[in-house]
Amino acid sequence: MSDKKDSTRDTTHMQEALALAKEAFDCNEVPIGAVVVDANGVIIGRGYNQVEGRNTQCAHAEITAIMQANDQRGDWRLDDCTLYVTLEPCSMCYSLIRLSRIQTLIFGASSPRFGYQLDNVATSSVYKNDVRVVSGVCAAQAEHLLKRFFQMQRIKKGEYKSGSQKN
Amino acid sequence: MSDKKDSTRDTTHMQEALALAKEAFDCNEVPIGAVVVDANGVIIGRGYNQVEGRNTQCAHAEITAIMQANDQRGDWRLDDCTLYVTLEPCSMCYSLIRLSRIQTLIFGASSPRFGYQLDNVATSSVYKNDVRVVSGVCAAQAEHLLKRFFQMQRIKKGEYKSGSQKN
Repeated sequence: MSDKKDSTRDTTHMQEALALAKEAFDCNEVPIGAVVVDANGVIIGRGYNQVEGRNTQCAHAEITAIMQANDQRGDWRLDDCTLYVTLEPCSMCYSLIRLSRIQTLIFGASSPRFGYQLDNVATSSVYKNDVRVVSGVCAAQAEHLLKRFFQMQRIKKGEYKSGSQKN
Repeated sequence: MSDKKDSTRDTTHMQEALALAKEAFDCNEVPIGAVVVDANGVIIGRGYNQVEGRNTQCAHAEITAIMQANDQRGDWRLDDCTLYVTLEPCSMCYSLIRLSRIQTLIFGASSPRFGYQLDNVATSSVYKNDVRVVSGVCAAQAEHLLKRFFQMQRIKKGEYKSGSQKN
């Protein structure tokens, strides 16, 4: 029963993260979204990928969501919080999640080329607390959005090429 | 001759990073400073650790310096740049350095407990370019500042304990 409740809650929060990923998609950014949720189930941080629009790799979805949560709480410690993100975080974001002492990380799609699991950072003894990791929540929706984005990018590239050939 | 020139230039830029570390010290933050230098030797980003003051782990010296460089250049790519930092970066900052395609990383003191070299992140195949790493530049000054800071913290803690005993 508790598992079912957890799963419904996780799906609800991941849908919020997916809505943010769609905002990234609409801005022509790789569609990734993230929310930070506190112990009461309240969203205290939201972010979507804006690397190209804001000209910095510090505009990953997780970083924006965590910084907003830090601001709201007035603390860098997010011990009781859960981070929901539509795609497996990279090593930078995973390290930030650990440094911010986030209790639970829940992600959607796996990222076999850029995910933190490629690195030993996952098992590093640097961090003061453990992080519980749940993967695959609403993964199909996250994957679909990512595939659609990259497909669109390839089409745009193709159009550009055929356009240049005409000149 | 070129090596000597490199070394003089590296010392000059590291002294700027050390001056920023001193600003952190004066704000009662772990004294770490960083600068981003472009191909012409011009500093385009400056940062010092402000994790406690700004309530976020995103206020590491390297992150602030890189974000400032991104702003100044209007680009997340810092291919021709060198990052000078007084202490070996953590995995989060090292990952950001790689994601930002910084060409050369020069650090002062080593960080055997928190440095990126603890993790495999250093050898990860995720990143598109290599990073040249030079360590130990002005290391003694960086170590001295860090030692003085932690010594002061221990003294403060001692005073606090003896103060509470009196109450």
